[in-house]
Formats: sequence, structure tokens, C-alpha cells
Amino acid sequence: MCRWAAYLGEAVFLEDIVTAPCHSLIAQSHCAQEAKSPTNGDGFDLAWYCDRPEPGLYRDILPAWSDPNLKSLCRQIRSSLFLAHVRASTGGATSRMNCHPFTAGRWSFMHNGQIGGFEKIRRALENALSDDVFDRREGTTDSELFFLLMIDEGLAGDPQGAVSRATARVIDASRRAGFEPALRLTAALSDGESLHAVRYATDAHAPTLYTSVFRNGGGRCLMSEPLDRDGGDWQPIPPSSFVTITRDGMTIRPFAPEPVRLALAV
Amino acid sequence: MCRWAAYLGEAVFLEDIVTAPCHSLIAQSHCAQEAKSPTNGDGFDLAWYCDRPEPGLYRDILPAWSDPNLKSLCRQIRSSLFLAHVRASTGGATSRMNCHPFTAGRWSFMHNGQIGGFEKIRRALENALSDDVFDRREGTTDSELFFLLMIDEGLAGDPQGAVSRATARVIDASRRAGFEPALRLTAALSDGESLHAVRYATDAHAPTLYTSVFRNGGGRCLMSEPLDRDGGDWQPIPPSSFVTITRDGMTIRPFAPEPVRLALAV
Amino acid sequence: MCRWAAYLGEAVFLEDIVTAPCHSLIAQSHCAQEAKSPTNGDGFDLAWYCDRPEPGLYRDILPAWSDPNLKSLCRQIRSSLFLAHVRASTGGATSRMNCHPFTAGRWSFMHNGQIGGFEKIRRALENALSDDVFDRREGTTDSELFFLLMIDEGLAGDPQGAVSRATARVIDASRRAGFEPALRLTAALSDGESLHAVRYATDAHAPTLYTSVFRNGGGRCLMSEPLDRDGGDWQPIPPSSFVTITRDGMTIRPFAPEPVRLALAV
Amino acid sequence: MCRWAAYLGEAVFLEDIVTAPCHSLIAQSHCAQEAKSPTNGDGFDLAWYCDRPEPGLYRDILPAWSDPNLKSLCRQIRSSLFLAHVRASTGGATSRMNCHPFTAGRWSFMHNGQIGGFEKIRRALENALSDDVFDRREGTTDSELFFLLMIDEGLAGDPQGAVSRATARVIDASRRAGFEPALRLTAALSDGESLHAVRYATDAHAPTLYTSVFRNGGGRCLMSEPLDRDGGDWQPIPPSSFVTITRDGMTIRPFAPEPVRLALAV
Repeated sequence: MCRWAAYLGEAVFLEDIVTAPCHSLIAQSHCAQEAKSPTNGDGFDLAWYCDRPEPGLYRDILPAWSDPNLKSLCRQIRSSLFLAHVRASTGGATSRMNCHPFTAGRWSFMHNGQIGGFEKIRRALENALSDDVFDRREGTTDSELFFLLMIDEGLAGDPQGAVSRATARVIDASRRAGFEPALRLTAALSDGESLHAVRYATDAHAPTLYTSVFRNGGGRCLMSEPLDRDGGDWQPIPPSSFVTITRDGMTIRPFAPEPVRLALAV
Repeated sequence: MCRWAAYLGEAVFLEDIVTAPCHSLIAQSHCAQEAKSPTNGDGFDLAWYCDRPEPGLYRDILPAWSDPNLKSLCRQIRSSLFLAHVRASTGGATSRMNCHPFTAGRWSFMHNGQIGGFEKIRRALENALSDDVFDRREGTTDSELFFLLMIDEGLAGDPQGAVSRATARVIDASRRAGFEPALRLTAALSDGESLHAVRYATDAHAPTLYTSVFRNGGGRCLMSEPLDRDGGDWQPIPPSSFVTITRDGMTIRPFAPEPVRLALAV
Repeated sequence: MCRWAAYLGEAVFLEDIVTAPCHSLIAQSHCAQEAKSPTNGDGFDLAWYCDRPEPGLYRDILPAWSDPNLKSLCRQIRSSLFLAHVRASTGGATSRMNCHPFTAGRWSFMHNGQIGGFEKIRRALENALSDDVFDRREGTTDSELFFLLMIDEGLAGDPQGAVSRATARVIDASRRAGFEPALRLTAALSDGESLHAVRYATDAHAPTLYTSVFRNGGGRCLMSEPLDRDGGDWQPIPPSSFVTITRDGMTIRPFAPEPVRLALAV
Repeated sequence: MCRWAAYLGEAVFLEDIVTAPCHSLIAQSHCAQEAKSPTNGDGFDLAWYCDRPEPGLYRDILPAWSDPNLKSLCRQIRSSLFLAHVRASTGGATSRMNCHPFTAGRWSFMHNGQIGGFEKIRRALENALSDDVFDRREGTTDSELFFLLMIDEGLAGDPQGAVSRATARVIDASRRAGFEPALRLTAALSDGESLHAVRYATDAHAPTLYTSVFRNGGGRCLMSEPLDRDGGDWQPIPPSSFVTITRDGMTIRPFAPEPVRLALAV
């Protein structure tokens, strides 16, 4: 299990969410309260949008709490849209290639949860990728592969549909491999304009997700756990939801896997 | 607070103590049970004696649990005398220079605890070092400085006396700086022949220390916490003790700081 | 282009080859003389055989010349069979997963050279791997993939044949992809008993390889460049050669790719 | 010897100087042309001024050429004043604490060159520091110590005077230690408003320094070597010069060490 935070709104210093508050993401890397394990020390990653269409990316394999670079960057960089992630490995080595967020062009993606039985379906899922998308594979994690599945399923034009169809492919591959699907997916994604998130699981244990207005400027946060332990106006996102935040507000829609499209012979 | 383990006896693979047992030192880096904080993720260090008079040294700033090199080294290296340490920083940056054990010639040293108010007495203590010893200073920790004080106090010829006099210097410097001494010192040291340890504090909270025979070959372990959570024949070392283990057995003597020698004008 | 060294013989300290001589492997990481680029600063790796059937493995992404751990390990560890490698990336990120030697069970493998046009044939080569071998893929380099091809081609029973058939598969895949094969392969491999090496290229520029008796004890070295700049009794290995060193001596046989076996329909 | 670059002017992306040009600072980390050694692979550091009075700081011990974080940061961050440095160690371990630029409050400092015979005068120079400044010491390099000497000599109110007096202290300490001073000092410093640089040596070999207008917006660069190998309008800064660049232009003044002030007994 990992912890993550995402923000869209007026530009704020990253530290306002990532390092400064009492239960900031960094604090959660040390002592998470709603995760199976309190420690998320297997690396971290930041993706932030600024003057370029594609995001900046800073990731390392140190625990977030002991990296002075991270602290300095969060103190200096202002952004109106960013994703930040601290990792607790569920498999996959501790390497920079395996740190979320993953990025592709304008898109960024980060994930809390896992694909159960991944080792039994990894190859089938990789084989089904288009050549272009396959060539983007840099690491070995289930999360990166899920991101690639989403790209192949039309992420650019239809984010919710792409997540939904990628979810269905994982479920389908699990059944074909002869085991009950066991996917947990609390993830965020962005194209630099909108911020999306999904909370879903094939069982009753979808990893937690909360949202709150952040400050007066109309910004909004999504987080694995609330930033402040008491107070604040944090709203839990229900399981099987897809959240979209834009400059104009937030919508929460039901989320379900979409049946895999089959190529039909005519 | 940190966790550490030390061994002297017939050569064993390091993994038999450091990585394999259910409550191995690596397990303690993740979920210590008798420390103020369960996580000791700010680096680790190994010093082992083999075919050379001086020890080998392997240290890094990653958490011990996520370093595949450490796992492989512990699986391959056999030693009849070694010290291993996982760090939870109490100050001092996370850098290799600040990872214990520290070494000097044949000697190695590692420390669980801290010098309270260190920033107020650091300079006075450093100033009192002899030139030769001062030049060995590589990092900024209280622990490394304590090791240098011991060297200056005659570590080579009289280990217990050197620890005792270094302790007295810290206490004396604290009083001169106008505050109540606050030293916690559960430490191990070796010259490649004998293994020594001290458990001491200026208050009632000396960090824990246990010992046990290890295997049938007559080897002996010293550890911050027992290797196995239940069973085993672990004996707590009482506070204010100095332990010496040689090939011939173990002695435990009372330990107290020795008054600082003053250069007398005649 | 990378630089590497391998040794089989009476146990020696690794430093005798890796760090101490005037043109040691570490010196070659800084100023190689027979490589396209003098700097091999993109990580290093050691695989050594000791008391276990499988090798120990130490690898990191720092330049070899600036890693104090490497220096200490080489000073302490004695081995009668080891492989050491300093990397200059030709593609593939600088991560521990991409550092040679690669290992699988008892086998270790390291490579100087590259598979030209790798990005055009990577997927076809990976698809042809058996499931068991595919699951071993940890990184993204051409070198690791070549090792996996060798395993699939029967490395355990017939090392030269496996290298030969893996070579043929790369050549075949290049032609199928519509370009002229461009493989450079100066590589070493071992199962902990024998030490093998190959020097081969599809053009006239097979990376250099030298061998020499090392010391009086009957040991023998294989290296990208001689250890000592003048003197020594270094013998260049001719291109298209396969070398096998055992406790009993060295044999050099001609090496050529073996045509790919086709499954025949009867 | 190291390589560095500094810029003051209209905000530009860091990559315009650090990573993108044909002979960018990163290119110089791999193949410097006017340094004793072509390779500067012992870490790098960035200090940039943005929305805060104090600079951001990003430093690591990897070679600059292999750090994807550095590339991404330089592509995203815009700044109107920054310092960037690639290190070739002349002593002092490869640790983040030993990477330039060093910072203190609003000030940043980076150095190419060295204090010859540093090990013989380090302690005397450290002892002369005021307590406040001594407490800032994090690493072990000559360069960091020179920065602390400057702070003690009144950097905030009189930059050129502070550099001049710090230089004199090094020269004086060398003579007192009985050897001929051997200081090489091509350094840059900034308080976030102005950019200063010095080129000086006690012998005839002051490390090179060049300046040029950068782009049309009136910005100006200072660099160890010109950004472009041919063309460009790079002006060498003569030895024994002190350069100050502000929004209003550049001044170059003669630089000489200022005799050490002695506390006079009355």
C-alpha cells in the first residue's frame, strides 16, 4: 500500500500539501494511519505541471522523509496541478523506474493498490499491448502496466472509459488464468488540464480516498488520508467512483469495469 | 534510536543474524518492538572481520529492507566477528558518512542512543581532540565524535577505561555548557579480537541490550532486541554494564564514567 | 562500451584485479584506452563465487571510482572465481537492474558490446522467450535479454552452443526486421565451476579481449584491457573465439552463430 | 577541477544553459576541454532563485549526465538567477554534503579550484570560525570551509571584501603552517540579487572563466568554458578579477587578497 496526494487549483507551493502540514504526505510516509502498513519508505515521486504541457518528474528510491532535495523542491516549486506519491512496495524492486507517478507525454498516473496474482497474468497483459505502448515499458510494476493498458484503451480521448476498459482487461486476464480477480485501484491521473481519480476494488477493500477544498482560492485536494488529523472538511469518496476535478468544479460518477471489446469477425 | 547486532564465535553467514531470522536485524529495521520508533530506515552499516586485521565496511543510506546488495552480501559472507547497525536518525543528515559502524584501523564502533544537547557541546568536544584524531572526522554525528573521544582516551590499550573517560568528557562538557547531562549509550566496539559493549545512560532509560549463546558452536550474540520473539535464551544486560566477549567467554562488569583527568600545574 | 574483468584460479582478493593494479578495472572505468569512450561511469557490478553454489552480487549506479563500499569489499573478499564489470550505457537507464553481471541460479553473465537496432527487435526476441525465462526479466537492456536467450537455448548443458544459438536468434531477428545484423559481443559467463568468454561481432569490430596467467598459482585472467600498461604477458583473444577456462587450463575454440533450429512439420 | 555555470537576467529555463546547448554544463561534465581532467562525474548541484528569498537546492552524487531528475528539473524550472556545478573531487568524499553550491540563508556559493595543503591548515581555519558559522559546517571540503570564512568576513555587507579577506586567511594559514600558499579560486556567489564571481590563484594557473551576453533579453552568463565551441561572443575574465553582474550591467574590478586584520592590543 502506498499513500498519495493530488491538487488542482490556484498555484500553491508543493510544500503546502507535501511536506508542511501536520499530517502531510511526508508525515504519512512515516506513520500512515489508514494503510495496512504505517511505513511507506520505498521511494517517492512528484509530477507537477508548470510552464510546459508535459509534467516535471522527480523521483528517488530514498524514503521521502530523508531526502533534502525533495524538501527544497517542495519549498520552491509552485504549481496549480500536481501529483505526489510515497511508495510501499508490494513487489517490484525499489528502483526509480518503479516509482510512481508514471508519465507519458502530457499524462501522469499514480496508484495505490495492486493487481493480485500479477505474476500469473503479467505476460498476457504485456503481450496485448500495442507496439508503441509496449516500447514505453521501463520497469516491472503492475502499476506501470496498468497505465500502459489505459493508454492503449484510449486514455487521451476518454479517461473514465480507458480506466474502465483497462480494469476489465485485468479482470478478464485473471479469469482466463483461472483465478478470482483481485484488483485494488485507488489512482489519480491527469493530462495537465483536469485531474481524475478512481476508487475501486474487486472486493470490499478499495483503498481509501478523501477530498477537500484546499484554502480559499477554490483549489481542491485528493488524498489517501486527510491532511489534518482533526478538523478540516474532508469528504470520503465512496468505492466504485470516478472523480473529475476541473477549474470549474468536481464531479463524482459511478465507476464499473466496462466489458472488453472483442474484435468481431463479420 | 537505532537497532544493532554483534556476534563473536565460529564463523557464520551474516544472514544467520542480519537477515534470515523472524526478528532479524532487518526485521527490526522495519518493526522494532522495544524502541521509541518502530522504523529504522535512515541507512545501515556492516563491519565484519575476515582475513585482514581491519574490518570490511558496507554502508548505505537506503533502508536496510530495500537493499538487494545487503541481502546478497549477508548470504555470501562468513565471519567470526561482526557488527551490524540500522539507523534511525536523531539529527545529522542521512549520508554514508553518518552511518555506523565507524572504523579506525582495527577498531569498529556502533551506537544506539544519543548525546542530548549535542549542538551545544559539539564544538568544545571537537576542540579537545588531538590533531591526529580530529583529522579522522568525516561526518557530523554525535556517535562518530564519541568514537573519536574514545580513541583519544586510549581505546587501544584500555577499552573500558576509554569508554568511561569519553563518557565523563561528555558529562563534563554538558555541565560546563550549563545543562544537565543527557547521554544514552548502548554501544558495541571491537578490535577484531574481542567484542565489547556498554549499556549506560545518565537517566533511567538506557537503551535495551540482550545477549544469548548463538547455536551450538559457542558463539555469542549481542542485540538491541532478541532475534526470536519467543523462546530463545536471551539475557538482558543490566544498565551501567560493560560486556566483554572473547573466544573464552563473556564477562560483565559494572560501568561508570571515570572522572576527567586534569592536567595539573605543579 | 563497457570494461570487464574475470578470474579463475587460486583464491585472490578481488582488489588484486579490480582496484589495486595501475590499470585495474577501476582505473579503466576512469580512463579506458581501447574503448570508444574513456569513461565507464554508469554503474558497476561484481559477481563472485565463494561458499555457496550461486554467486554473490554487488551492484550500484555510482561510478566505480567513487564508491567506498566497492573498495572495501574488494579488499576483504577472496574468491577463486569472479566477474567484475564497469558500465558505459549504450541505452537503457542507469539503474541497478541494468548493471551487469546478471545472474540466474548458479550462472552469471556480463557483456561488453551491444545489439544494434535493439529497439526494433526487442519485442520479437522477448516474445520468443519461454514463460519461465521471461519472468526473470528485471530490466530493459539488450545484455540482460541476451542472457535470457542463452538460458532458453540450453545454457546449463551446452554453454558454447547456447551462446551460438542466442547469437543466431539476434541475427535472424534483425534480418526479419529488415536491417543488417549489428551485434557486438565480448562477454563472460560462469556457472561457478568454469569460466567462459566469447569475442564476436557481425562486423570487423569485436570489442577487445585479453588473457594472461595471473600470479604463480596458476590462476588466469580475462580482461577488456591488460591490467598493466606495459610488461605482463597478455595474449589477445582473436575475434570469433570461444574461451573456456577450468582448473585444468584454457581452451580457445572457433565461434560462429549456429543456425536457428526450426520446428519441423512432419 | 570542476566546471560551473551561472546566469542572471530575464527568466530562462535552466535547460537553456545546463543541459540543452552542444557544450552545455552537462556536456562539460562528460568532456570538459579546458580542465585538467575531462570528466567531472563526482556529483552535481543546482541553486536557483525563484519566489523565495533563499535559493532552491538540488544536489546528488550521481554523475550529472545520468540523472533523469536533473534533466526534468532543468526542463521545467525557470529562473532569472541560478548557479550550477559539476564536481570532480580533489579530496573529500563523494557525498551530497560535499556538493556545491553551498547555501546559507540567501547566499549561495560554488567553487572550481582548491586550497593546496588543505589537510595541514583545515583545523586552524575551522578553529578561527565564529561559533555561529562553525555550526553550519556539514561536510569536509575546502570549498565549504572557504564559504564559511567568507561569511565570517562580512559577506552580507561587502562581498568582494569578504572574498578578499577569506583569501588572505588561507594564505596566512598556509605560511604559518610552513608552506607556500597554493590557492586556486574561480568561484561564483550570489545573494539572490547580484551575481558575483572571482578568478584568482596564488600561482599563474587560475582556473578559466568566461562571460557572454545570453540571448537578446540582456541576460548574462558566467562559465568555466564557453557554451558553444565555436562562435558566440565569449570574453575571458582575466586572472585576479572580481566580477559583479546586476540587472544594470557588469563590472570587472581588480582582485587581490586583503591583509588579515589583526586585533590590536591598545
